Amino acid sequence: MSGGAPDGGGEASIRSARPDERARAEALDAADELAAFRDRFVVADPTLVYLDGNSLGRLPRATVARLRGVVEEEWGERLIRSWGERWADLPTRLGDLIGTGLLGARPGEVVVSDSTTVNLYKLCVAALDARPGRAAIVTDRDNFPTDRYVVEGIAAARGMTVRWIEADPIEGPRPADVEAVLDDAVALVTLSHVAYRTAAVADMGAITAAAHRAGALALWDLSHAAGSIPVDLGRDGADLAVGCTYKYLNGGPGAPAFLYVRGELQRELRQPVWGWWGRDDMFEMEQGYRPVDGIRSFLVGTPPVVSMAAVEEGVAMVLEAGIERLRTKGVALTEYAVALHDAWLAPLGFALASPRDPARRGSHVLLRHPEARRLSGELAAHGVVPDFRQPTGIRVGLAPLTTRFVDVHDGLRTLAELAGG
Amino acid sequence: MSGGAPDGGGEASIRSARPDERARAEALDAADELAAFRDRFVVADPTLVYLDGNSLGRLPRATVARLRGVVEEEWGERLIRSWGERWADLPTRLGDLIGTGLLGARPGEVVVSDSTTVNLYKLCVAALDARPGRAAIVTDRDNFPTDRYVVEGIAAARGMTVRWIEADPIEGPRPADVEAVLDDAVALVTLSHVAYRTAAVADMGAITAAAHRAGALALWDLSHAAGSIPVDLGRDGADLAVGCTYKYLNGGPGAPAFLYVRGELQRELRQPVWGWWGRDDMFEMEQGYRPVDGIRSFLVGTPPVVSMAAVEEGVAMVLEAGIERLRTKGVALTEYAVALHDAWLAPLGFALASPRDPARRGSHVLLRHPEARRLSGELAAHGVVPDFRQPTGIRVGLAPLTTRFVDVHDGLRTLAELAGG
Repeated sequence: MSGGAPDGGGEASIRSARPDERARAEALDAADELAAFRDRFVVADPTLVYLDGNSLGRLPRATVARLRGVVEEEWGERLIRSWGERWADLPTRLGDLIGTGLLGARPGEVVVSDSTTVNLYKLCVAALDARPGRAAIVTDRDNFPTDRYVVEGIAAARGMTVRWIEADPIEGPRPADVEAVLDDAVALVTLSHVAYRTAAVADMGAITAAAHRAGALALWDLSHAAGSIPVDLGRDGADLAVGCTYKYLNGGPGAPAFLYVRGELQRELRQPVWGWWGRDDMFEMEQGYRPVDGIRSFLVGTPPVVSMAAVEEGVAMVLEAGIERLRTKGVALTEYAVALHDAWLAPLGFALASPRDPARRGSHVLLRHPEARRLSGELAAHGVVPDFRQPTGIRVGLAPLTTRFVDVHDGLRTLAELAGG
Repeated sequence: MSGGAPDGGGEASIRSARPDERARAEALDAADELAAFRDRFVVADPTLVYLDGNSLGRLPRATVARLRGVVEEEWGERLIRSWGERWADLPTRLGDLIGTGLLGARPGEVVVSDSTTVNLYKLCVAALDARPGRAAIVTDRDNFPTDRYVVEGIAAARGMTVRWIEADPIEGPRPADVEAVLDDAVALVTLSHVAYRTAAVADMGAITAAAHRAGALALWDLSHAAGSIPVDLGRDGADLAVGCTYKYLNGGPGAPAFLYVRGELQRELRQPVWGWWGRDDMFEMEQGYRPVDGIRSFLVGTPPVVSMAAVEEGVAMVLEAGIERLRTKGVALTEYAVALHDAWLAPLGFALASPRDPARRGSHVLLRHPEARRLSGELAAHGVVPDFRQPTGIRVGLAPLTTRFVDVHDGLRTLAELAGG
């Protein structure tokens, strides 16, 4: 597995190779002003090199205590009374926490609800209903699968067309790519702000402006952006957005997603799933659906409280660290990963599949190698957890709150050894 | 508050009134073969009379341990690896547990996913798409609000008509009521199996057969039925069903819901929210949505794992008790509540608004009184938790796993005192 290198053979020896380089990583960690945050997460196995915090963020210690309280006190002791005392405003309170703290939204523009996919569906349909007579939806071929499938399903149901952007496979959709497919038949442009594989950052302001010039609405998926890069939905004029809370926001497996609807659109847009949580005076249980004023009209049914409460703790820690500092460290981590790729991996047949310009890159890095699937499995056996992305990608997620520079070093060093370096 | 009764005035005195009757309740508890199950739930305040287990079931002690494991070990230690090791099959595993154990479904016909409302939406749209050219949906005026709103929203979006059954306010929709509005324009009949206010049990077999004779599909909401009465979707020929897990199944606040699609319909019906969890080979992330075979095609996005894991413990306890024994006790509890109503409350201006025939009644009882809203508030102040249902209803939920006969006694005795008895 170590490819015959003189120091190869075992896990320990792989990690101890290149002592000078590892000392450099240790020095970077020593100078990291966010380093102490890692101690506020559960790190059960300190030898594990976890490079998948953008698939599932680590568990905050505060969440352990919070969930015990939610389960054992709020549910166990207060029972149904907790709805009035603690739970009913979770969707809007968490929405405002995320929206105003991380997304450049105003209070009352973000709410936590359902899954990212269900939210995408609700907002896509709402947007299309607001642009009657337009028969096309624009998205890109490399968008996250669920985003593509939702758009395909809605287009099929409504007899609409999907206009696929075939963007540069590394740099992702740029404003000119979008403008090239825009005309007055387009109702909606929906893209990811940070691409799930390459981490390419799309220019939200320019693309949204282009969509608006064509009379279309713009819906952004922020799943890989929220908590990793500064987002300013207000400045950039975004109409709609969705995103998940279990990546850089550390909300836990499958935690409920968020959605954003620009305040000025909230009366005009109506989402298609009319549930009791979106109705005015929901507990009056009266005849006839009448949406409540504001962002709550985009709620549907009873939210999963235990999973939702965890989100609050994860987000609170991101806010405490501050998105500017997180971004600074995220850039430093990915720059370091790129440098190690160039030094160790490129000579072994790897190729960087993320933008080289850090301003155009989120907080993960995609490496391509013909044997990526096998290497991902071998990495796991050596205590390194990245994310395989078919057909030839190894995605290295670098969560600024918890990933150390030595993790980048150890993970990529192990990868190099496994690939024969 | 005690209305001047000689023993009135304080909480303790209210509860100690009528010692002979309370001794009878205690004797019923002593003879209850399910009584020991109560000890397997968290009962933080033994003086609390909790009569709202049909809004939020109590917390099983096993769930406390399970959720600690899910959070601290599965999320905290195993991180992303838990998807493969523990979480990926939760939706189908829990679905089979509920479906085969409680609903008369076959393996592969039930899955846990989303909220009840989102599931209703998915299955309604799927059903309507399977009955093109039919322009009407049948439901009843007293159906749970979210059920009515979902149907209204879909009808509005598709230019369809809702045919409202105006059923007897106590007995609920009967087969003749449904047949009266059926013809070949009806695509779908959707009703609750147990009415959320009155607990009236609809005749699933006869109504489904009537729907089928008219060429329509039948979709049942089992939220107040699952875990309280025997349900046999297979025998009764139901096409589709949904239901929630946080009532008699004790899954916790807002726990994910279940949905049922009769096996024979799974290839024909396609739900409208095309997400990655419903796609064949989801982790290949390929172009183009292609539904996976079977019930998983009715999944959408990533499920909230922590909330979902709690469902498994709640359901396991229901299965251990057995639905026949639960039903027997549920009938005994509601019969006792009806008897106390007749003895104590009817003379004070209350009226029973649930069916008198226990075979036509679920496991809760609705009492009407002009001052219901005020009385509900005063009950809470006296340590009794029922559910106010506007405009004049006090809903008394009797969860067979955790409600004692003395709870029925104490709750209704307190109500009688507060109402001047």
